[in-house]
Amino acid sequence: MKRRVTLKDVAAQAGVTYQTVSKVINGRARVLPATEARVWSATRELGYRPNHSARSLRAQRSLMIGYSWVPTRPDQTNHILDMFLTSMVEEAEAAGYHLLPFPYREDSDQVSAYGELIDAARVDGFVISSVNYDDPRVAYLQERQVPFVAFGRIAASQHSAYVDVDGAAGLRLATTHLLELGHRRIAVLAWPPGSRVGDERIGGYFDALTAAGLGPDPAWVARGPGTFEFGLAATNEWLAGSAPARPTAIVALNDIQAVGAMHAALGLGRTPGQQISIIGFDDSPMDQYLWPPLTSVAQPIRAAGRKCVEMLVGLLRAQAPPETQVLLAPELVVRGSTGPCPS
Amino acid sequence: MKRRVTLKDVAAQAGVTYQTVSKVINGRARVLPATEARVWSATRELGYRPNHSARSLRAQRSLMIGYSWVPTRPDQTNHILDMFLTSMVEEAEAAGYHLLPFPYREDSDQVSAYGELIDAARVDGFVISSVNYDDPRVAYLQERQVPFVAFGRIAASQHSAYVDVDGAAGLRLATTHLLELGHRRIAVLAWPPGSRVGDERIGGYFDALTAAGLGPDPAWVARGPGTFEFGLAATNEWLAGSAPARPTAIVALNDIQAVGAMHAALGLGRTPGQQISIIGFDDSPMDQYLWPPLTSVAQPIRAAGRKCVEMLVGLLRAQAPPETQVLLAPELVVRGSTGPCPS
Repeated sequence: MKRRVTLKDVAAQAGVTYQTVSKVINGRARVLPATEARVWSATRELGYRPNHSARSLRAQRSLMIGYSWVPTRPDQTNHILDMFLTSMVEEAEAAGYHLLPFPYREDSDQVSAYGELIDAARVDGFVISSVNYDDPRVAYLQERQVPFVAFGRIAASQHSAYVDVDGAAGLRLATTHLLELGHRRIAVLAWPPGSRVGDERIGGYFDALTAAGLGPDPAWVARGPGTFEFGLAATNEWLAGSAPARPTAIVALNDIQAVGAMHAALGLGRTPGQQISIIGFDDSPMDQYLWPPLTSVAQPIRAAGRKCVEMLVGLLRAQAPPETQVLLAPELVVRGSTGPCPS
Repeated sequence: MKRRVTLKDVAAQAGVTYQTVSKVINGRARVLPATEARVWSATRELGYRPNHSARSLRAQRSLMIGYSWVPTRPDQTNHILDMFLTSMVEEAEAAGYHLLPFPYREDSDQVSAYGELIDAARVDGFVISSVNYDDPRVAYLQERQVPFVAFGRIAASQHSAYVDVDGAAGLRLATTHLLELGHRRIAVLAWPPGSRVGDERIGGYFDALTAAGLGPDPAWVARGPGTFEFGLAATNEWLAGSAPARPTAIVALNDIQAVGAMHAALGLGRTPGQQISIIGFDDSPMDQYLWPPLTSVAQPIRAAGRKCVEMLVGLLRAQAPPETQVLLAPELVVRGSTGPCPS
């Protein structure tokens, strides 16, 4: 690497002492305005930049924000990571920070990855995601008194800052869309109880049915992993029933389950959007390429990424942030997989 | 944040002077073994960790690796980013480094983002991707003498370290698979000439045809953007021709073009894998969920991410890396969209 321009170089160029340059640059100038101007013009001419490590050591800040994510299975994709990271990286840079991504560790080890970064003073705070009930990271970061913002809801009793997308509102939108298309036998592909995200989302399905005066039929609530295989198997079982026992529409807690449902229907010669309606959740980029394209609930991921960093920077600057709990509204993207209830 | 444990705390706990602790911790110990042991056990008891900024300032290193990526269009996905970042982050951590992602800037501004990080000594080197012919970042980083490794080939004349996937080998695999299934009229959905990746990939298509004694027919080479719309339009045009002028198989330079081709075929009642065979490139996670699932060329992205960081760390440690140009082999993943040539 080329030799860096140092304070001494600037001093020589400006014809002043090293100490004078240091005072001017660190904003503790008690020097004549003309001298100060000479110093600044020398820094510009030489392209001087303060050394980050020195600056952060003086400030006792790293100007870094830690972030870790759960790696996806090799055959899956985390289609929101690109959007979430890009929006966080941009918002951080605008505030003079950088993001420090670090590897996810399983279970009990997970908290130690956070502890090591805190101990080594490599980060000033964290954005955490994939937050679940009793997430050990929340208690740990509170105990260490390190600022953080969660992408995902945290119990109100914990008084922590979070940004979340209203999953219940998403399922209400999806279920209401099906009701408006005339469907009454609406099944749901859900996850096992006990996941924060899953419990919130399915709540919206129940809300919409109740509001329409329909009692949810337990036979039309299938709970299992958020996989293609589960969506396929559960839908095959529903469609094997007699006509009055078959749902005319299916809403899923994620896109992958919905794609499994589509394959089950297609395999039985039932075209989604015609003989059966299917809705996913996530609005994965693949949805537009499916046959037919999949109606899905879209989350405002870029807005969430920006908001997480904006709130964290507010905490780091010890400003009371204007909001500490932000709930963003999802949107329904209607495509070819939903249509009027067949009579 | 809780007060950090300092050298002074360790000194008090160990009953030695601050200077003694500093010497032991920085490996310049000229103290009795028993004293040294007391210092180390005090650091463990108190949970002392050296401050990263102080350590990197002493070492004149940031222990950070810069990386920036081209953001995808809002309706697209960068399905390799998760795998590429995860593998780099893990490999970096194992070597005592962290990744520093920074926002991509367009065109002439692009190089300035790299310059600012170098000037502020925030990174020790870079991994660069989306490398094209005459990439301005290559010349810039060489001139600044900052170590970097490219994911994507660099002209041999530039003597720079790179990791790449052999795109020509990928198209050879795909085209050969179609030849083995009995296809002779094989069309290609390609990109406009002049992109490094596109030119390499299509070379493999020509190679395989030539090796099979078939002269490529210019009518079956469609060049346009790597989009769904282009794949759809070009395939519709091919399939509108008279039977002898219609290709029985189509290979595409990326999955999105291939999905456009599938929709064109399905729209005309021709099922991929039966009346027509179609192959994509990228092995996007969505490929398994398409109807029928798409045969595609898979790139070893995790291996590429690990290799980029491993080679860069070698350069940063001023070791001559064992290899400076690494070409990884892709694999063909055969699914339902390809089948025997219909007679």
